[in-house]
Amino acid sequence: MDQGTQKRRGRRAAGEDTKSALLAAAREVFVERGFDGATVRMIASRAGVDAAMVNHWFGSKEGLFAQAVLQVPIDPNELVRRLLDGPADEIGYRIVRTFLTIWDATGGGQFVALIRSVTSHEGVAKVLREVFLNTIFKQITTELGLDQSELRATVCATQMVGLGMVRYVVHFEPLASTPVETLVGMIGPTMQRYLTGPLA
Amino acid sequence: MDQGTQKRRGRRAAGEDTKSALLAAAREVFVERGFDGATVRMIASRAGVDAAMVNHWFGSKEGLFAQAVLQVPIDPNELVRRLLDGPADEIGYRIVRTFLTIWDATGGGQFVALIRSVTSHEGVAKVLREVFLNTIFKQITTELGLDQSELRATVCATQMVGLGMVRYVVHFEPLASTPVETLVGMIGPTMQRYLTGPLA
Repeated sequence: MDQGTQKRRGRRAAGEDTKSALLAAAREVFVERGFDGATVRMIASRAGVDAAMVNHWFGSKEGLFAQAVLQVPIDPNELVRRLLDGPADEIGYRIVRTFLTIWDATGGGQFVALIRSVTSHEGVAKVLREVFLNTIFKQITTELGLDQSELRATVCATQMVGLGMVRYVVHFEPLASTPVETLVGMIGPTMQRYLTGPLA
Repeated sequence: MDQGTQKRRGRRAAGEDTKSALLAAAREVFVERGFDGATVRMIASRAGVDAAMVNHWFGSKEGLFAQAVLQVPIDPNELVRRLLDGPADEIGYRIVRTFLTIWDATGGGQFVALIRSVTSHEGVAKVLREVFLNTIFKQITTELGLDQSELRATVCATQMVGLGMVRYVVHFEPLASTPVETLVGMIGPTMQRYLTGPLA
């Protein structure tokens, strides 16, 4: 039985090594090449592992990006599906609820890590913008048939980035400990207007 | 004439030294003691200069704080006067216009410096919150007779901090180069609701 435990622990450790190597290589390659320029093959080769390991551990290039750069353990395509699942005139509320729930789950740690990497590496901000606009936001605006989609996307970003900064980085009270549903009620209407309302 | 130039240059340099010494001492003392706990006398003594130099160079303790910690060359009391000067139902618009105009004037450099000091020093965030809530915001909420003033203040902070992050730190386009008045039209109504509207 000791031997079996040993074996399983060994296999798990090797798997974790592969995963870590892929995450480190992905951060480098996404920053060097951008999201569209980076390929799964390039990242796997940099990590010294088989390209099939990317699908095995992260589901897709988007999933690897989410964990390596966004520090969020959710595939962006899955995230979009979750946000679009419900009435269009409540999507702003769902965005606030979904992001706060994901970020609160790690006590804000993931958000803080994301902000650190964005503020210290120019490249990360560029890649983040690319995926945020081209992967996550374009699907939402196409689905909802919105005009001025890039401006709407970036105005939405101001509200969500600031919400994370005040709640998890500077910890301004009472907002830092206000319940998620109260914040959804206050900030949801803002996001809804930025997405589907008149902009000015 | 050479001598005169020399003398003026000498005086100016000494004045700049005093100013720099006060700024450096102020950053330390505000972080150690908080805004209310720090005194002009303490800061001048740490800088090795006369306390009268604080009024000479910065107008007040608030003015010194604004330059040392907020990196904004405006006395917070003067800022509040400027924001309150106009109809109450347009103050949200004036806040967006005033901050964007101040920050744009240095190409966002002041905002980036502020965010760097806030994210690298716990103490700066605490002092910032104290002055933001107790000095700037309390005067506005008292003047406007608002309820839930601390929650309103911190919700307003989410929108303004995020606006600065997206425009000056991560440079998401098109928002980073959208004209100030367009942003005032889009984000002004949000700030107005957070200040004087129903919160949920």
